[in-house]
Amino acid sequence: MAEEPAAMVRPRATVREVADRTGLSIATVSRVLNGNARVAAPTRERVLEALIDLGSAAPFARAGLRAGDAPIFVRCPYELTDYFGLIVTAVAEELAARDRPMVLDAGESSQQRHPLGNLPLRVDCAGAILILPPEDTSELTQLRRHGFPFVIVDPRTPPPTDSVVVSAAHLRGAQRLTEHLLELGHRRIGLLAGPDEWLASRERLSGHVAALGQAGMLQDPQLTQSIRPTIDEGRAAASRLLSQPEPPTALVCFNDKVAVGALLSAQDAGLSVPEDLSIVGFDDSEISRVTRPDITTVRQPLGELGRAGVAHLMRLIDGAPIDEVRVELSTRLIIRGSSGPPPA
Amino acid sequence: MAEEPAAMVRPRATVREVADRTGLSIATVSRVLNGNARVAAPTRERVLEALIDLGSAAPFARAGLRAGDAPIFVRCPYELTDYFGLIVTAVAEELAARDRPMVLDAGESSQQRHPLGNLPLRVDCAGAILILPPEDTSELTQLRRHGFPFVIVDPRTPPPTDSVVVSAAHLRGAQRLTEHLLELGHRRIGLLAGPDEWLASRERLSGHVAALGQAGMLQDPQLTQSIRPTIDEGRAAASRLLSQPEPPTALVCFNDKVAVGALLSAQDAGLSVPEDLSIVGFDDSEISRVTRPDITTVRQPLGELGRAGVAHLMRLIDGAPIDEVRVELSTRLIIRGSSGPPPA
Repeated sequence: MAEEPAAMVRPRATVREVADRTGLSIATVSRVLNGNARVAAPTRERVLEALIDLGSAAPFARAGLRAGDAPIFVRCPYELTDYFGLIVTAVAEELAARDRPMVLDAGESSQQRHPLGNLPLRVDCAGAILILPPEDTSELTQLRRHGFPFVIVDPRTPPPTDSVVVSAAHLRGAQRLTEHLLELGHRRIGLLAGPDEWLASRERLSGHVAALGQAGMLQDPQLTQSIRPTIDEGRAAASRLLSQPEPPTALVCFNDKVAVGALLSAQDAGLSVPEDLSIVGFDDSEISRVTRPDITTVRQPLGELGRAGVAHLMRLIDGAPIDEVRVELSTRLIIRGSSGPPPA
Repeated sequence: MAEEPAAMVRPRATVREVADRTGLSIATVSRVLNGNARVAAPTRERVLEALIDLGSAAPFARAGLRAGDAPIFVRCPYELTDYFGLIVTAVAEELAARDRPMVLDAGESSQQRHPLGNLPLRVDCAGAILILPPEDTSELTQLRRHGFPFVIVDPRTPPPTDSVVVSAAHLRGAQRLTEHLLELGHRRIGLLAGPDEWLASRERLSGHVAALGQAGMLQDPQLTQSIRPTIDEGRAAASRLLSQPEPPTALVCFNDKVAVGALLSAQDAGLSVPEDLSIVGFDDSEISRVTRPDITTVRQPLGELGRAGVAHLMRLIDGAPIDEVRVELSTRLIIRGSSGPPPA
């Protein structure tokens, strides 16, 4: 590897050249190039523009690294548990198989930082995998404009045009799940949806509504709640729906955490699942398998999401012509004990 | 930061100097210094010795990085779910708060690789956090000998002397858990232990045996199984114990996954928990909270394990005099619905 010229090696600009061009001190330029997060955004932007002008937009080259060897930045600003942890694990294994170090930024606290603006300047990364990035579309578009290669896995907001996106088939998965409930005979279906501003919530809602629509039905707003996807919020929202005068006979939940919360709520209310109430989730995470009854859900190919993200990023870094790629990996209905016919 | 001299900056050796000294080609030395895993171990060792002789044991300096800025290597060769994922998340957040990039190696497949020998040579790390490292003691001792700063979080094998180790108080946690069962009146206690070669298994076994011993009892080998800590193995091992002519009235499980498996097995056998059988776990992971009944367990301070690991590593990198440190973080009994008095 080390002997062959890599596709994206560009001339290097020295710290002094950048300092001369920008009028900033060498210390400041060093701080920017070392990825110090406390540098003001306009300063960073000046350094970035100078680097581009000097024909050196690949700072990792300064570290003796080349596009073929430099690390990949992976951002997953959430707790690495069942869902995100499995995506990150697959990304880690796939990068390791390609001898690529992975620089990971993770944890909820990362949502308070803004590492994306700095990425094109960091010596320690040649590309990025952004998992459910909380940034708005304009910030991602800015990164795209700087020519920095990145792939979005499971976008949270509408991704910029011209970007490479890998996601699960939320819409078709949710559609199949609601069809399953309709086939069982349910007509009064409650919906515990995810946050309105999440793309996955909107896609799953579309799938749900599509299935209802094909059966000549609309989602009842009285039976709909938008919540953050946690066990506790699922439990509280389910108990609100179940305490209505005419409660639903089935609950479609944004994910398995919400479904587990709904199951706890049903048990609190003395309801039998699925005899009195059917509950379905999404993700096929571990908790969906350990409750009694276990939970009907939609399997997301989490490992494959991570691996496909890496594969497409490598193509970008190698300079393959990719205009706009939307990879949608198929999901699968998994029928378990929590869904059955509605009570007579 | 960038202006002040860091504590551990050492003279840099050039690739050419190393090549001259070792008689290896520049391409080969570059490959070694770039951390290429396919380099033969003796070659790597020659380069490492030359670097030490040349007074340059901090390769990250070549990348324009200094001990105060260089990334930290974090190895967690497991799936990042509830348990390991929470430790890694805390490590990530703590490193980010100190403006330290984190290079992560994760996933079961990493157990087939041997990245430790290479660490003192990598340009991209100034220290390491090793989470439940599968390496044997001699490999860790070797790393210690090369003067590379690292901290072991939750050691799997006996750690080398002179190393810094952060772990949970497995022994006292397990002791308290068994005392709880004894206080409830249980005398016939089954044990689903972890792998014999894991330090945590041995510590938890010691705690269990200590509690029994203080009540004048010994663990019955007929009621003991050593298994890998998964839901499936827990379920199978529990059903072996429960099908004995004189089954136990309580099961002490290595962790919550095993306990959830045991709960499924009890439900398979038509037993009520805790009326017919008490089940206790370890970890306080999410699955211990979603079953009915929820599971009595021992809380491990997973986030604090990660944060303490980072804090001690920073002290090592800053050159603080640390001879041998064993940090043991306290655990806490959490009594839930799965434990009660034995059947009359």
